Amino acid sequence: MSQTTERTEHDLLGDRSLPADSYYGVHTLRAVENFPITGTPISIYPDLVRALAAIKQAAALTNRELGLLDGERTGAIVRACEEIRAGALHEHFVVDVIQGGAGTSTNMNANEVIANRALELLGHAKGDYARLHPNEHVNMSQSTNDVYPTALKLAGYEGILSLIEAMEVLRAAFHEKAVEFADVLKMGRTQLQDAVPMTVGQEFSTYVVMLGEDIERLKEAVLLICEINLGATAIGTGINAHPDYAALVRHHLAEITGIPVLTAPNLVEATQDCGSFVQLSGVLKRVAVKLSKVCNDLRLLSSGPRAGFGEINLPARQAGSSIMPGKVNPVIPEVVNQIAYEVIGNDMTISFAAEAGQLQLNAFEPIIAHSLFKSVTHLRAGCLTLAERCVRGITVNREFLRRSVENSIGLVTALNPYIGYGNATGIAQEALAGGHSVYELVLDKGLLTRAQLDEILKPEVLTQPRALVGLA
Amino acid sequence: MSQTTERTEHDLLGDRSLPADSYYGVHTLRAVENFPITGTPISIYPDLVRALAAIKQAAALTNRELGLLDGERTGAIVRACEEIRAGALHEHFVVDVIQGGAGTSTNMNANEVIANRALELLGHAKGDYARLHPNEHVNMSQSTNDVYPTALKLAGYEGILSLIEAMEVLRAAFHEKAVEFADVLKMGRTQLQDAVPMTVGQEFSTYVVMLGEDIERLKEAVLLICEINLGATAIGTGINAHPDYAALVRHHLAEITGIPVLTAPNLVEATQDCGSFVQLSGVLKRVAVKLSKVCNDLRLLSSGPRAGFGEINLPARQAGSSIMPGKVNPVIPEVVNQIAYEVIGNDMTISFAAEAGQLQLNAFEPIIAHSLFKSVTHLRAGCLTLAERCVRGITVNREFLRRSVENSIGLVTALNPYIGYGNATGIAQEALAGGHSVYELVLDKGLLTRAQLDEILKPEVLTQPRALVGLA
Amino acid sequence: MSQTTERTEHDLLGDRSLPADSYYGVHTLRAVENFPITGTPISIYPDLVRALAAIKQAAALTNRELGLLDGERTGAIVRACEEIRAGALHEHFVVDVIQGGAGTSTNMNANEVIANRALELLGHAKGDYARLHPNEHVNMSQSTNDVYPTALKLAGYEGILSLIEAMEVLRAAFHEKAVEFADVLKMGRTQLQDAVPMTVGQEFSTYVVMLGEDIERLKEAVLLICEINLGATAIGTGINAHPDYAALVRHHLAEITGIPVLTAPNLVEATQDCGSFVQLSGVLKRVAVKLSKVCNDLRLLSSGPRAGFGEINLPARQAGSSIMPGKVNPVIPEVVNQIAYEVIGNDMTISFAAEAGQLQLNAFEPIIAHSLFKSVTHLRAGCLTLAERCVRGITVNREFLRRSVENSIGLVTALNPYIGYGNATGIAQEALAGGHSVYELVLDKGLLTRAQLDEILKPEVLTQPRALVGLA
Amino acid sequence: MSQTTERTEHDLLGDRSLPADSYYGVHTLRAVENFPITGTPISIYPDLVRALAAIKQAAALTNRELGLLDGERTGAIVRACEEIRAGALHEHFVVDVIQGGAGTSTNMNANEVIANRALELLGHAKGDYARLHPNEHVNMSQSTNDVYPTALKLAGYEGILSLIEAMEVLRAAFHEKAVEFADVLKMGRTQLQDAVPMTVGQEFSTYVVMLGEDIERLKEAVLLICEINLGATAIGTGINAHPDYAALVRHHLAEITGIPVLTAPNLVEATQDCGSFVQLSGVLKRVAVKLSKVCNDLRLLSSGPRAGFGEINLPARQAGSSIMPGKVNPVIPEVVNQIAYEVIGNDMTISFAAEAGQLQLNAFEPIIAHSLFKSVTHLRAGCLTLAERCVRGITVNREFLRRSVENSIGLVTALNPYIGYGNATGIAQEALAGGHSVYELVLDKGLLTRAQLDEILKPEVLTQPRALVGLA
Repeated sequence: MSQTTERTEHDLLGDRSLPADSYYGVHTLRAVENFPITGTPISIYPDLVRALAAIKQAAALTNRELGLLDGERTGAIVRACEEIRAGALHEHFVVDVIQGGAGTSTNMNANEVIANRALELLGHAKGDYARLHPNEHVNMSQSTNDVYPTALKLAGYEGILSLIEAMEVLRAAFHEKAVEFADVLKMGRTQLQDAVPMTVGQEFSTYVVMLGEDIERLKEAVLLICEINLGATAIGTGINAHPDYAALVRHHLAEITGIPVLTAPNLVEATQDCGSFVQLSGVLKRVAVKLSKVCNDLRLLSSGPRAGFGEINLPARQAGSSIMPGKVNPVIPEVVNQIAYEVIGNDMTISFAAEAGQLQLNAFEPIIAHSLFKSVTHLRAGCLTLAERCVRGITVNREFLRRSVENSIGLVTALNPYIGYGNATGIAQEALAGGHSVYELVLDKGLLTRAQLDEILKPEVLTQPRALVGLA
Repeated sequence: MSQTTERTEHDLLGDRSLPADSYYGVHTLRAVENFPITGTPISIYPDLVRALAAIKQAAALTNRELGLLDGERTGAIVRACEEIRAGALHEHFVVDVIQGGAGTSTNMNANEVIANRALELLGHAKGDYARLHPNEHVNMSQSTNDVYPTALKLAGYEGILSLIEAMEVLRAAFHEKAVEFADVLKMGRTQLQDAVPMTVGQEFSTYVVMLGEDIERLKEAVLLICEINLGATAIGTGINAHPDYAALVRHHLAEITGIPVLTAPNLVEATQDCGSFVQLSGVLKRVAVKLSKVCNDLRLLSSGPRAGFGEINLPARQAGSSIMPGKVNPVIPEVVNQIAYEVIGNDMTISFAAEAGQLQLNAFEPIIAHSLFKSVTHLRAGCLTLAERCVRGITVNREFLRRSVENSIGLVTALNPYIGYGNATGIAQEALAGGHSVYELVLDKGLLTRAQLDEILKPEVLTQPRALVGLA
Repeated sequence: MSQTTERTEHDLLGDRSLPADSYYGVHTLRAVENFPITGTPISIYPDLVRALAAIKQAAALTNRELGLLDGERTGAIVRACEEIRAGALHEHFVVDVIQGGAGTSTNMNANEVIANRALELLGHAKGDYARLHPNEHVNMSQSTNDVYPTALKLAGYEGILSLIEAMEVLRAAFHEKAVEFADVLKMGRTQLQDAVPMTVGQEFSTYVVMLGEDIERLKEAVLLICEINLGATAIGTGINAHPDYAALVRHHLAEITGIPVLTAPNLVEATQDCGSFVQLSGVLKRVAVKLSKVCNDLRLLSSGPRAGFGEINLPARQAGSSIMPGKVNPVIPEVVNQIAYEVIGNDMTISFAAEAGQLQLNAFEPIIAHSLFKSVTHLRAGCLTLAERCVRGITVNREFLRRSVENSIGLVTALNPYIGYGNATGIAQEALAGGHSVYELVLDKGLLTRAQLDEILKPEVLTQPRALVGLA
Repeated sequence: MSQTTERTEHDLLGDRSLPADSYYGVHTLRAVENFPITGTPISIYPDLVRALAAIKQAAALTNRELGLLDGERTGAIVRACEEIRAGALHEHFVVDVIQGGAGTSTNMNANEVIANRALELLGHAKGDYARLHPNEHVNMSQSTNDVYPTALKLAGYEGILSLIEAMEVLRAAFHEKAVEFADVLKMGRTQLQDAVPMTVGQEFSTYVVMLGEDIERLKEAVLLICEINLGATAIGTGINAHPDYAALVRHHLAEITGIPVLTAPNLVEATQDCGSFVQLSGVLKRVAVKLSKVCNDLRLLSSGPRAGFGEINLPARQAGSSIMPGKVNPVIPEVVNQIAYEVIGNDMTISFAAEAGQLQLNAFEPIIAHSLFKSVTHLRAGCLTLAERCVRGITVNREFLRRSVENSIGLVTALNPYIGYGNATGIAQEALAGGHSVYELVLDKGLLTRAQLDEILKPEVLTQPRALVGLA
């Protein structure tokens, strides 16, 4: 019975049995045994699996074109790759997301699954590699060292596009609120101290602008990862690749994926360089840092309900406490803060791994990939969650805010040009000490008339630049 | 039919339906909807789930003792907790590992699963909370803010013990090698430049000592997380807890878990403080940094096989290349390097999250926990893998090493006390320029006799302190 | 004239002129030329310069004792070292704080300055190394690789003691305030939302406890850096050192410095290991993270003066704005926050440098030292500044706080055990929606009597555990 | 006599005496007292001091144009600013580089020095602010919150340009070596294991390309910091600024500095945002990570002289050891590694500080600036030092490298297409085990003829792509 249920494969360490119907082979098996680290297989990143298939498909078509691969094998490989790109067979990509070997095991896993599915399509038994070989045919003209980084870039590209989509959703949500609150006056603050008036609309508009800028930066950074090194083979010298291979495979890959990939001008450099990942992660860290700042603001502005800032209300999403009845917490901003902290940590991991590259290769790209993909997917989830479960439901305590402006000492800044910095400082100190309003003190001291004050302190002029008001 | 398959639960946001046989309730449901971040549920950390159950069990016993909970409910809660501690029901702990709300959702998830299992044990329908309520009975005398950090500490404790075990395995593996290679002479290196002779045994013994020290540091750090804040309730003031509760529950918890937990002297401080997690993570970072250095050394010493250091051989674990036949790579050290980089990134995440705590609570403990647990479990896997799949199979190129010592310029250092720093520098420069051996040059110049040289350069004296040899 | 004003020294690169009266020599000169990085010389760390002198003094005494150094040279070296330890000649320690060479240039700088001062004391010309040589006599039985890390440890020890002193000052300042505000009731907050009452004294006491714990952790960590590797010489094998040297030099060094130094049991390991610096930096990061949290709290609690939390007042230290009259900002906590961020960054630098060690030595100890010393000295300055210029002058807005408790919804938590979580949630929601007080709503609904409420809500019972009040 | 040597100034805290001839005034004095942190004054960054003067000059000219400032005061302010821009008076910029207050003290320091120098130029006593006031005239239409970030950006711009210059020098140095070594064959390595042949020229060309890419990224990032927020005043609403002020001051500033500054479209956002600093620091981190990798390579390739890779020789720059005669270490790459580690740490500090911004301002810009300026200036020093003191003097061990290729097992990869992956693996294993050469084994087994082998293994085809060689 063992003949029907098991097959034997061979590698440089010897023979190993596998279930006869296993899509992966001995190299994958070794890797699974060697890297029992996280329990999470690479199939958790479907964009990566699809990217591997796209590359293998492009390579097969190119090899066919160069007369290196026959039509039958090419057809079978292409069809297997198309199935994987359509979502099939992902469960056979089983190597751990944290793995040694510079991605070799991921590439081997792809080669084996594709070879065995192609064999199946051709009516042969799995493992019958004499007919179609994972390394000789599926991997033809390739090396892990050009396939793997290229796959990471394709997957990163797709991930970033998804993230940008989610950021656009969040930006739109903030934009709606900026419009809705455009006329709500409030005290601006610097260093957590009352400063001068502004509108809640102005405050929320800053989040719109921030996200817009971050999206621009991501769009720039993602272009950097369109530069691939297919054709480099082992170390970038292109050993065992046809001189026309690099150009042709790039063309096929661009066509298959719709991603505007370019071949790096210096393939030796491109094969060892992780700079574009470091740059991209740096931009993701920027996004995280700013998103975290926004969430800090939201939590601060909604602090209370009574002993806090109490300016805005976040929508209640769940009971906040197992002991304090009625307590509602800013759980959505909190979860986004935590995603941001994770992204910042991931960036550090990526910096370490990138710095550790040696000579012609960086052996630590798997942890770079894992960290980058986590950052991208979690940021995306965070943006959508923040938009849908928090920002869209925010309301503002309009009346409370109006009173806080009228009652503020910060109004005195607007009087500066009329009564001088010295007088203004005196008024501010007296107001604070005695609990008075600036308005009444200025009148009491006869520094300005009520009409003059009303003119100077009109909301619409307090919140934008203006020429000095004539106070006739 | 809906009556038999669904039940309705209520929280401050209104009513929600759940499957009638769901162990978790409305609070968990809200959390699952609110935090669709990683797709990974908290059940991935069984130590955490068990810790929650241990706390709920200890609380129930304490509440019973204080006359606050009747015997029937106590019994049912205790039995449910024991089942969970034995491994049951973990799949119902479904909240995402990255969550807002300072752990409230994790605590609520535990309260609901335990309540419903207890109801079931008592023969009641799930959701019949009038009989046994998640918040009023299971959570009695507790708050998320004391339960959750305590659970993290218990789980962290178990995790660290497991990690120490794995480090002991690795230490033993290095020790064996240090003994095996005790008499193999080699050139020591500083700044990657040939320095003076040593033995491979001495080199490997440093790894033994390093791991031993790291284990000591972990044992110290783990004691810090034995300090718990049960009895603190919401903010540490102990509101709604009986004055005797903290002491009693600590006693029960220690008994149930076998962990020497202590009640923090200032519960207000203990409730907001994440210092022990930061410290523990700092020690894990230390472990990671040093483990990574060891792996860097192993990769360097085994570089080659011909154009490298070529001093030691790591056991082959898998084919190293899809294009280069026969190539074998140091995949096991590489995977451990990557774990180390991840741990260092996790430490940064934890620092950020800890710094972001505000006033009476740190809302970001979930990401602290997630990062810490990842570091601990991956380091454990890395140590075991390194020991079993790499260190135990290391061999040494004895003859090659012997020649490299004889041929080295570094021998000249040993002559320093006899011929002076100035003469020695000249010999070294001449040897390097002309490709000569130090030995022959010293003889040629008549600086020492052959007998004197042999005496000075005896391997056993080169690798340890000695009084100046009399050169009569 | 040049003969009287210049002298020539020689090293393996050739001859170089130096001013005849220069205390440092050719090796230092090369280093100054090679490392024009920061413009900051190592003399900025006087503890380091003194530590180097202490080690050279201990080594000379030991070499004398072992009969390796004559009395005259020993005496001159010892006297030169004592002068440096008393504060003289520091300006001649001119190598850049960021330097290559694993500290060799720092050690050479020390050897040269001491040799030339000793020559001067003996009545010889500077540079007359035939009589007393920097490398052969001052550096006898030593290597940079044991001298330099030992010096870093001694200097680190002194620095940490100074830091602990400063932290004690800060702790005392917080303690005074905790006592002063012991009876001031306020609303505690979790997740920035009003939670349950506490006292300001309890809040400030947490800072006292935090600092106390941090001090304990520092005291533990500082013990780790008492383990030195003198006697290791080049790589830990002790080549060219007398077998009794390590024990004797340790004894002298402990006597000279008063620091309880120990000789590491495995000198090969101790020579390459930076674990104790990583650990110490990790503890400093912990201190920074918590200090930053405290400063965040102070800034938050003093936010306002009108549109903020407004609970406490920080003493005004300078005008806060060049445009907003009367504005006063929390500048002291802000500067401490920034020190904390620097310390966290330094810790990352140290982690990178430590991980980069290779084989028998870590070549990157200079940046470890620079980062560590910055962290220690800046944290010390921050603690003193915070204590003296901020904490001691803090006042509290007692009346405002009292009203915020009476007016709070959080009081409802205390009613939980009497009216149930369900009723309490309803009360909380109604109070929030209608702007009512919990007190009046409970009375209106007849859930409790006024006497019962008064009993339950007594401040002294709200802020600590209690048995359920009998409500007869 | 005190009347002639002292003057009194007043601020909201009261009166203070200053030396009568002090250029700075009371606000600077308070800041010096409040921030005794590092002992390093802001004058250590001359680009920053000049930037402040340029802004004050542009503001004065704009205020004059808007009729807000008379001609005499404008003239004096402008002249004072020009002097400072020319290098004068920098020693009066005395505030500590680490300071609270969001840069207010730096701005006040500039206002005071400029005002007092202007007063002096007008023939008035210093401190006679009734005639020309630091806040009312020098700071007119400005706030720290627009002046300070703008100054940081101008200074950052100048710094980055200098850094790029230095990187160009380094790039040119590597380029020369790439050309010089273009025909030197060597073994390429992946994962520190021998891979396939390449030329040393190819290896060095990767450093040229890396630096070129980094320069491009810096040029992009530096454009982001050309966006300024002058005209924003306190929080971006432009309170107290004339509607035409922002456009006019930008024009003047661009003219004065030659930097293509732009006014941010949303000044409220621009005032609180630190995104461009985070991005810039992220790019600096990228530069550091890659520069460190290059230095790691140089140290590795030059390891030896006998028991290492021994491929290249770095020029000797200083004696490498106080104990090991003749030892020369790679001290220049080592110092650059350490700069890189510092830059990575600085980036973490900047991330923390940026994330901590709250609401309308980031109070922590001083530590962002300090960290950024350190990174820029140290990287610049590192690049120049590496180029001049290391790269330009590198030589290569041509003959040794040739032999290592001939002797390598990696040659077998080139045979793969001719003899198959299976045969090739066998050859590789046999060569390794028996110490044979691939060449001789292939001949022995009759797999290929000598002529065929010679054709396949020609150096010029081994190091680039090729079509399969016809082996007739």
